Amino acid sequence: MPFITVKVLEGKTPEQKRDLVKRMTAAVKESFDVDENKVFIFFENMKKEDYGKHGELYSYMDDKK
Amino acid sequence: MPFITVKVLEGKTPEQKRDLVKRMTAAVKESFDVDENKVFIFFENMKKEDYGKHGELYSYMDDKK
Amino acid sequence: MPFITVKVLEGKTPEQKRDLVKRMTAAVKESFDVDENKVFIFFENMKKEDYGKHGELYSYMDDKK
Amino acid sequence: MPFITVKVLEGKTPEQKRDLVKRMTAAVKESFDVDENKVFIFFENMKKEDYGKHGELYSYMDDKK
Amino acid sequence: MPFITVKVLEGKTPEQKRDLVKRMTAAVKESFDVDENKVFIFFENMKKEDYGKHGELYSYMDDKK
Amino acid sequence: MPFITVKVLEGKTPEQKRDLVKRMTAAVKESFDVDENKVFIFFENMKKEDYGKHGELYSYMDDKK
Repeated sequence: MPFITVKVLEGKTPEQKRDLVKRMTAAVKESFDVDENKVFIFFENMKKEDYGKHGELYSYMDDKK
Repeated sequence: MPFITVKVLEGKTPEQKRDLVKRMTAAVKESFDVDENKVFIFFENMKKEDYGKHGELYSYMDDKK
Repeated sequence: MPFITVKVLEGKTPEQKRDLVKRMTAAVKESFDVDENKVFIFFENMKKEDYGKHGELYSYMDDKK
Repeated sequence: MPFITVKVLEGKTPEQKRDLVKRMTAAVKESFDVDENKVFIFFENMKKEDYGKHGELYSYMDDKK
Repeated sequence: MPFITVKVLEGKTPEQKRDLVKRMTAAVKESFDVDENKVFIFFENMKKEDYGKHGELYSYMDDKK
Repeated sequence: MPFITVKVLEGKTPEQKRDLVKRMTAAVKESFDVDENKVFIFFENMKKEDYGKHGELYSYMDDKK
């Protein structure tokens, strides 16, 4: 505890995720005073065509740029 | 706000998702009186062998039809 | 199918949620061509002190306004 | 109802998932006294490089073994 | 691993939940051959006015019965 | 993007959550090189009787200690 889910656009590298796991675990340890062994982190990678905001699908937004 | 997650069997096209993002965002704007720019939608695509109902895995249900 | 989760700040009335369920179900029926009886919607109500954005907890943002 | 999400490392076979759907549905029927037709189960398969625990990304843990 | 979320209408007692945790953990152990200490279960209790199906909010369905 | 959900036992104070939002947002900015304004964090507070691990409901574990 806690269990942390990070929903992000696909494309982040394992190294970036590794770095974030280290930093996030340290942040939780500091803020919530819990042991590092109790922090679980799950990444959920989202494709552009599975992400909608401002009434539009993100993959279509690229076309407009 | 709000953040909407749509968990659906894989196979919906980007066009169908784009259409739903438009309709859903308009629905939220009407019902919740929030600005379109505050509505975020995430699609989660599920394989048949990752979906169970009525005590059976959906991918096995096809065999029985 | 689909299963839809709407994460929103607490305070929306049952009437607003009822209205959104109607509109959302109709939107899914149109966009995904699925039967109304297959659409499930879950609301998750979030307190201001459980929502962080732009590096700040939302409940603290009010103080600054 | 209920709606059950099982987040697990990728690699479980359809047969294992089918077996778990049967057992889980029976367990819910026993414990919650609900009809089997009301139990929905979703599997979410996670890659090793999307799972962090104890301050480390799981895919890097293999290298240390 | 795995991490299991059970979304259910509020009202189940701690004893019912305790019984389901025991049965579910045993089911996962059998089906996925994982150690009991690796199974985590989270209950999410939903109010009737936060659950919509078949185009209607569940709390309004009671009125129609 | 990203959208981060933190599922934790209830009891953390708004100040602790505020501190974690600051640290987590900074961590994401560093690791993923994204702007602070794009990071959203949701806390989900869990009661002891809604959390099961090692085949037991957490609220019952206290009794055994």
